Formats: sequence, C-alpha cells, structure tokens
Amino acid sequence: MKFQVGCELDYDISSLTTIIFNIRAIENKYQQVLDSNLAITPDCQVEEYIHPHIESSYLRLTVPEGKLAISYQAKVELHHDTNRKQDLQEIAPAEIPLDIIHYLYPSRYCQSDRLIKFAQDEFGDCQPGYLKVQAICDWIYNKVTYMSGSSDAHTSAHDIVTERAGVCRDFAHLGVAFCRALNIPARFVSAYAWQLQPPDFHACFEAYLSNRWYLFDATRLAPEEGLVRIGTGRDAADTAFATVFGGVQLNNMEVYIDRIDEDSVELDRQAVATT
Amino acid sequence: MKFQVGCELDYDISSLTTIIFNIRAIENKYQQVLDSNLAITPDCQVEEYIHPHIESSYLRLTVPEGKLAISYQAKVELHHDTNRKQDLQEIAPAEIPLDIIHYLYPSRYCQSDRLIKFAQDEFGDCQPGYLKVQAICDWIYNKVTYMSGSSDAHTSAHDIVTERAGVCRDFAHLGVAFCRALNIPARFVSAYAWQLQPPDFHACFEAYLSNRWYLFDATRLAPEEGLVRIGTGRDAADTAFATVFGGVQLNNMEVYIDRIDEDSVELDRQAVATT
Amino acid sequence: MKFQVGCELDYDISSLTTIIFNIRAIENKYQQVLDSNLAITPDCQVEEYIHPHIESSYLRLTVPEGKLAISYQAKVELHHDTNRKQDLQEIAPAEIPLDIIHYLYPSRYCQSDRLIKFAQDEFGDCQPGYLKVQAICDWIYNKVTYMSGSSDAHTSAHDIVTERAGVCRDFAHLGVAFCRALNIPARFVSAYAWQLQPPDFHACFEAYLSNRWYLFDATRLAPEEGLVRIGTGRDAADTAFATVFGGVQLNNMEVYIDRIDEDSVELDRQAVATT
Amino acid sequence: MKFQVGCELDYDISSLTTIIFNIRAIENKYQQVLDSNLAITPDCQVEEYIHPHIESSYLRLTVPEGKLAISYQAKVELHHDTNRKQDLQEIAPAEIPLDIIHYLYPSRYCQSDRLIKFAQDEFGDCQPGYLKVQAICDWIYNKVTYMSGSSDAHTSAHDIVTERAGVCRDFAHLGVAFCRALNIPARFVSAYAWQLQPPDFHACFEAYLSNRWYLFDATRLAPEEGLVRIGTGRDAADTAFATVFGGVQLNNMEVYIDRIDEDSVELDRQAVATT
Repeated sequence: MKFQVGCELDYDISSLTTIIFNIRAIENKYQQVLDSNLAITPDCQVEEYIHPHIESSYLRLTVPEGKLAISYQAKVELHHDTNRKQDLQEIAPAEIPLDIIHYLYPSRYCQSDRLIKFAQDEFGDCQPGYLKVQAICDWIYNKVTYMSGSSDAHTSAHDIVTERAGVCRDFAHLGVAFCRALNIPARFVSAYAWQLQPPDFHACFEAYLSNRWYLFDATRLAPEEGLVRIGTGRDAADTAFATVFGGVQLNNMEVYIDRIDEDSVELDRQAVATT
Repeated sequence: MKFQVGCELDYDISSLTTIIFNIRAIENKYQQVLDSNLAITPDCQVEEYIHPHIESSYLRLTVPEGKLAISYQAKVELHHDTNRKQDLQEIAPAEIPLDIIHYLYPSRYCQSDRLIKFAQDEFGDCQPGYLKVQAICDWIYNKVTYMSGSSDAHTSAHDIVTERAGVCRDFAHLGVAFCRALNIPARFVSAYAWQLQPPDFHACFEAYLSNRWYLFDATRLAPEEGLVRIGTGRDAADTAFATVFGGVQLNNMEVYIDRIDEDSVELDRQAVATT
Repeated sequence: MKFQVGCELDYDISSLTTIIFNIRAIENKYQQVLDSNLAITPDCQVEEYIHPHIESSYLRLTVPEGKLAISYQAKVELHHDTNRKQDLQEIAPAEIPLDIIHYLYPSRYCQSDRLIKFAQDEFGDCQPGYLKVQAICDWIYNKVTYMSGSSDAHTSAHDIVTERAGVCRDFAHLGVAFCRALNIPARFVSAYAWQLQPPDFHACFEAYLSNRWYLFDATRLAPEEGLVRIGTGRDAADTAFATVFGGVQLNNMEVYIDRIDEDSVELDRQAVATT
Repeated sequence: MKFQVGCELDYDISSLTTIIFNIRAIENKYQQVLDSNLAITPDCQVEEYIHPHIESSYLRLTVPEGKLAISYQAKVELHHDTNRKQDLQEIAPAEIPLDIIHYLYPSRYCQSDRLIKFAQDEFGDCQPGYLKVQAICDWIYNKVTYMSGSSDAHTSAHDIVTERAGVCRDFAHLGVAFCRALNIPARFVSAYAWQLQPPDFHACFEAYLSNRWYLFDATRLAPEEGLVRIGTGRDAADTAFATVFGGVQLNNMEVYIDRIDEDSVELDRQAVATT
C-alpha cells in the first residue's frame, strides 16, 4: 500500500530557539520513502540525522525570533508481511539479537520492571507469540478508556495500569511495558495513521516476533495496515515530533495521510487544525 | 594510569538459564584494554556483543542446571584528559552531536522531565560547564546520605530527591537526571573503582562537556582517576552486571582492581566476598 | 477583627445526587460565628454535622435532577492570639495532646513519612517552634511557584517537593507534610481569605505550638489575620468544599469576604465568577 | 467466642524516648474486654487515651536509656453478628452516618481517589453489599501474592495494585482503597489473629454495611471469627503497634492468642520470637 503523508507546522518563535523535529517517515525494511519534500520558512540550516539505534530521523534547526513554518510531504510504500500472524513466534532470550536487547529493558514511560508480576498474572496463560501480544492489546483496549486530556506529558505506563484512561501514547506505552515485562522486545512508534479521526500524529508500538518487528495498535482507532512509521524508540521520550530548546508557540498544526495506490489516488484527504 | 581489574562470580543454576553479563572493561577513546582473559566453567558457547550506542560489552551465555563460574581479568590503561577541568564548556543544544542526543532525554531511573524546575532553581545560577556539574555532585554529596540497603532495584532519581538516602547507583542516577534537566547530556557508567572500600562494582556518571565525556562520581568514595568503565548507558537498566532469564543464585562475588603502573605493580589487592 | 463571608453556588444536577458541602465558617476557640444564613433552592432536607475531630461543618443534601442554588452568608469574629509569635514553642512528643496525635501522622496528600530526611536536612538547624514553621513557609514561598493549573486533584506534597509549582492547596499540603516530618502537629485548613485576589476558597494550614493551633499561609497571597476557617482536617481530602455523589455541573461560584469592623463596614466587596 | 490475647515486647532504649503503643484490644460494640493486665518495666508514668474517632487505645510512655519491657494480656469476648452475610447492604451516600464519612476519603496508604476507574471496572458489575466486598477480597487473594519482605513501610495500596505482592497490611490497604473507591466506608484494623501462623500482629479491614462494621481479611490466613481488634483507623498510619520518638531497638516480640471458651481453655498457645 502507498500513502501520501505530511504535515504543516506554524510556530511563533519568541527568542533564538533550537528545535529537533521528528516528523519524517523513516526508511527501513518495513517501509520505503518514494519521494519527499521539506520546506522551511525562513531559510535556515537544517541538520539531518538518522539515529541508527533509535531508528528516528531527526531534523535540527536553530531559528531566530519570528515566524517558523515547516511543510513536509512524502510518498511512502509499506511492505506488509505475508506471514500468517497467528504463526508469529516469541524469540527466547538466548536468541534475541543483542543489538535490540535494550528493547527488553525498562524506560522512562514503560517501567516494565514494576509490572512483571502483573503481566505474568494477566497474560502468563496466553499462547506465546502473536496471540499473547494481541491479548495485551485486547486487555488495554478493554480496560483503558481513550479520553483526550486524561493524561499529560509525565504520564507513564505504570500510571495507566491503575488510572485506566489515556491517549494513544499511553496505550502504546502500556503495550510496550507489558511486552518487555514478559521478555518480548517492544518499542514505541510514532506514526501517520490512515483513517485516524481527527487526523493527528499517532502512537503505536512494535513487538519483535519471528525475527522482525510487527506493529500493534491497542487503540483500534486506525488500521495497522495504514500506519506509516515516523520514529521508533524506547518510548515517547525518543520520538517527540518536536523537542524544543527555547521559547516557541505552536500556532497551527495539520497532519494528513491519504492512500495513493494506483486506483485510489487522492482519496479523502484528512486534515486537523490546532490553533 | 594502568590497572589490573577483574571479577569472580559463582552461581548455582536451578534450571536452563540465559544470562547477559556486562562485566568487561569497555574499550573506547578514554581507556584501552591491554590484555584480558575470560574463563567460564562449564564450557559453554558465549556470544559477545559491543553495543555501539550503549557502549557496553555484553556477554550472553545459556547454561543448564548446575554450577556456573565466571572469571574475568584485564589490564586497562586510562587516558586522562589534560584539559584544565575548570575550562570545560557546556555544548549548546544546537551543537550537541545528534548521535548522543538521546542522553538528554529522560530514562527509567533518571526522570529529568520531572526535575526541570528543581534543577533550574538549585543550579540555575551556577557557572555553566564543569563547575555546574561539579555543583550538582557537591549537592548530591551534601544532601544524600550513602546508606547500604536504603534503596532497591526500583529506586529512581525522582525518589532520591525526596528520600535523600541511597547507594552509588542512586547517586549516579541523580547526577544524570540533574544534568539532563539542565540540557547537559549525561549517561550512567558502571565501573571498577580503584580504592573503593569494600571492593564492589561501582556506579558513576559521565557528562558531555567540551565535546567529550567526563567522569563524575558524586559519592566521593573513590578517585575519579581510578575509575575503569565497564558499561555506559542511559541508566542502570542498560548496565546491570548480570541480566538473568531463569533461576539462579549468586553464591560468591569477588571484584578487584589494582594499580599496575611500572613502579606500583600488584599494590594492595582488594577483594569482596558476597556469600 | 470581624468579617462578612459567604458564597453563592449554582449547579445543574443531571440525576439524583447527594452532595456534602463544607462551606460554613467553623466555630471554635479561634473564631466565633456571630450570625449566619443558609438558603438552598429548591427546598430540600439538609443534614448538618460538625465533625468533632476533623473540625469541619458538613452539610449534606440530596437533590433530584434540575437546578441547585446555595447561598451562604455569615458574620465571623476572629480571636487573634496576643502572644509574641517568636515565643511560640514546639511541644515534645511526650506532651502533645493524644487527641490530636493523628495530626503527626502522614495522610493522603501529606506523605510526611517520605520527607523525614528531607525536612531534617532543610530545617534541622532552624530554631524550634514558630521560627521553624516560618522557615518552612519561607522555603515553600521561595522554592515553589504559584501557578494556576500546574497541579490537579491527585497532586500531593511529595509531588510538589520535586515539581515545585502548585496552587494554595499544594502549598498548604507541603507545609503540613514538613511540619509532621519534624514532629510538629499540623493540619490543613480551608478558608475565606480577606484580600485574596481573585476571591476564591483558599487553603492554608495550622501548626500546633505552645498548646494551640496557629495559622500559616505559605502563599503570602492574603494576610493571616484575615483568614476565616471553614474546615480543618488531615488534608484536602477532609475539607473539599463540595463532595459530590452523582452527576452535577457547577455553573457559577462566587466567594466573598469583607471586613466589617465598626468603622469599616461593607468595604470593597470581592467576588469571583466561575462559569 | 472468648480469647486470651497478649504480647511481650523487649526494647533497648538508647536515649530518652517517647513511645505510643497501640497493642491493647479495643472495647467497642463488637468486642468486650473481660479483664486485662499491663506491666511495664521499669516503672514509668503511662498515659492512656482511647481516641474516639480513630477507635484506637493509645498508651504513651517516656523512658530513659536502658531496657524496656512491656507485657500485656487480656481476655476478650467477641460479639459475632448473626445476620446472614449475604443480606448485608451497602448504605447510600445519602445515608452513611456523617461521623464516619471520613472513611470514604482517601488516606496515606489507601489512595482510593486514584483507583476509582479501576475499581468500577473490576467490581462495578458485582452485586452491591457483602458480595461486592467479598469479591474485592477474592480479587486481592487471587491477584496479590503474600510474600514476606516484598513491601516496606512506605508501600501503599496504589503500589500493590501493580506490584501484586505484599503482606497483611498491604492486603488490608488494598481492600480499604477499593471499598472507598466504590463509596463503601472502610477502615484499617490491626488485630490479634487466632490461628495465624506464625503468630504476629495482623492487619485486616472493616467495611460498613447494613449500619455496622464488618471484618474482612483478604489474606485468608486466619478465620475472621478469631480476629480481636486492637486499633482501627484510616490506615496503618493510625494503628502502628508502636510509634517511636527517639532511639530504640526491638529485641524480642511475642504475640499470642488462644481460644478460651469454657471447653477450650489454654489451647495451643502460639508464640513468635523476633530477635
């Protein structure tokens, strides 16, 4: 499946500010960027960096007081796995590639070390592999209420387990934390999400099964087949769409994703405005 | 300065178990491993992996029920920086290398996002750079009591700020968290620590100043010049000396480090036994 | 000093609801209610209860779907202590009256048990008694920023110690927690606060010194001489102005307090509207 | 049923110390103290206070450096309710006596305000009254592992919900917190527990149903019919068997309870020693 994704961000900058953006679709073996365009006003030097371990594509720029407008578009093709999902296997700790072993460890918003007994009690009897991760997603979907404004930037998986209300980021953190607590490598993914209403940057997670990463979205707000990865990392700390060092105000944000397969070009374009 | 470091670890394994050890001195531009030896009984296949981003040297092995003995020794030369420490500068967010930018972000045990105002209040007026990090270490040393058993594996920097008692790991976590809260990249370091009494694996931290990493130890329990790095990472989650998947009991642990410069060979060997 | 205090509360009730109000000035040895009036529309049965230990004056009523309007006014005379404050003494644990001993114990929002070392470090060298409690208030005023919206109903003293921003309720919780951590009985007080801008229900705390309770307000937003107590308790859990069991929406709230000493009757009436 | 209860406590006192003991069986409408004896060595002045709201019987004494030995015995008769438990009803918030309304509010170790959604999700469909509280106890028994040393003096119900291991005090805190989150008044009870192995001070809780308090013990370690209440309160903060102001070391503690109904005098005396 092919998608046209993008975003428009307008800021007021009140003093010299450095921002690290993480808004570009990442290129990896699960998705290919066919073409892309980035426009920044005013002109400024942009440093690009693809973090090999975090698998995020950072853009850093430093801008003076005034206006800042970012416009990004890309065509992306997703490579969907053709395995039967039910057959996906857990990898034993003896076999997990050591270069991803840190995705077993707890992180700021995914305190898996404090949820081990909880996860074993709830999911210990599930069939290992895909079905266990799917059981985690079902649990989250059934137990946690999606509610805008119910959580904030400090909210973590450990909070959500008891408070049971959150947004996409919280659902993803909890999925990651439960997987890690059960020795399944898992990482946080920010994404453009096809059919998400209202359109916005989305969050979901990947679990490592049968020797590759598979996307899961416990919110059920958008089909997994239409998730275009932006950044991956240990949790939201690694994948914020903008990390700001200075004084800014976001005036407007539009995020969109359209399917552009041959016979479905320029389908219902979705846009969200935050003023 | 040159050191002979090493450890002896004896385990009882109660069932097939995978362990990831992180006990070897790392090789990087701050220290060189001159020679080393690793002996494992019983013979078993060992997978070695130097994690490029975490800068830790993992050893993974899977062993059946029975005994496991690990014996590691190495000669290490430390390359000390000859800069005047007082001249070390903070790097602006616009200039911090993007491949270490994640050391600005909060992690499991270093919730810098929750300590920003605290750190600004306490250290905002300090002179930037080395003196600010040193002020952080002094604050920790003066406010937090070193007390064995006062914290556990779940204890984080956020806890220590209020509870004010901990061990080396907690001192390091708090140093890291304060640095990050002030936009100074910082990472956790496990180490062999010369003159530490009683000998044990030690924890300290590195801050990124004047374009390289500098070691700091807020415990004042051992001289910074005698710290031989084992693993570095975001926090203790990345650098545990042993991560165990299975059932084991540690029966005995000896950790030692001796200075072996030409005229100081085989100085007071230090050893600790845990039964 | 004499004050005219009162409030007007308008609710929409969406289903049969029980509410416990705690809005009346309490009568105790520190203040006398000269006259008061309470009007409730629609007419409904009201149960009054002065909780002897919590020293709060509860009003309970159960109302059907529809509108609810509460109007309360009272004239209150405050009996100010004529002791020189600097002379106020701490009471040794051996002498604290046992009927207030629970005000030494930790409570929901005042986790004094987790702040003992912190409080001893910060205030251990202060002169005991009034000056120590005043030092606590000064510390809070200097270290914590008063910021509307920075905290929520779950925020506790333990959070504020690190996050260092809050509202009157948080300032009071922290004052209470530090006092208890230092073995000074302390309790939370909700109040009408003369000269508070904008007018609103206020929160402060009392410490037990020289065998009576003394008011302290670490916010410095209103003079302590003009604080008319509503409810006292262990913390905000005991003194909420309205505890609701059912479905309601608060449409409008006005809170006022005017000084009415002989020559100062009907001074600048203060009112706040929340829509 | 009648019981002989008691305890022997031996301390070393390192400096002038005040201790508030809470070890005597309380007298209330659920149990009657037939006779009792208290011996303290060395002779010292003891202040007794029955806290009417906390329903705890405090003993305060101040002792100099040296030894302290406390010996307490009592004969207690329990008045068991003859209602069919299944018929016990929840009391609506409109009808709960206002003098116990604070047992609906969150406390230090029972943060019911943070567990409302959790409790409604887990127990919202249970039949109200006795069966709902019993469902809470069953949930705790099934989900939380009783494990000595798994928690400490700071551990709260909110921690246990996720960590799922604790001791009797934690089981009781969680029962209290869930009840309050569901608008059922609940309080913490310390007790002598017949048939508890090994003998020790025990903790359980009471819920207010059909206009009286009923005991529940989620640990299933001792029959509810053999629980002799010592102190009741909001949580463990109110009911510690000893609150110490000074420097002491507990050298030995024996706690016992025997059934002494006419034909069962001096049954298997139970004793526990802590050195």
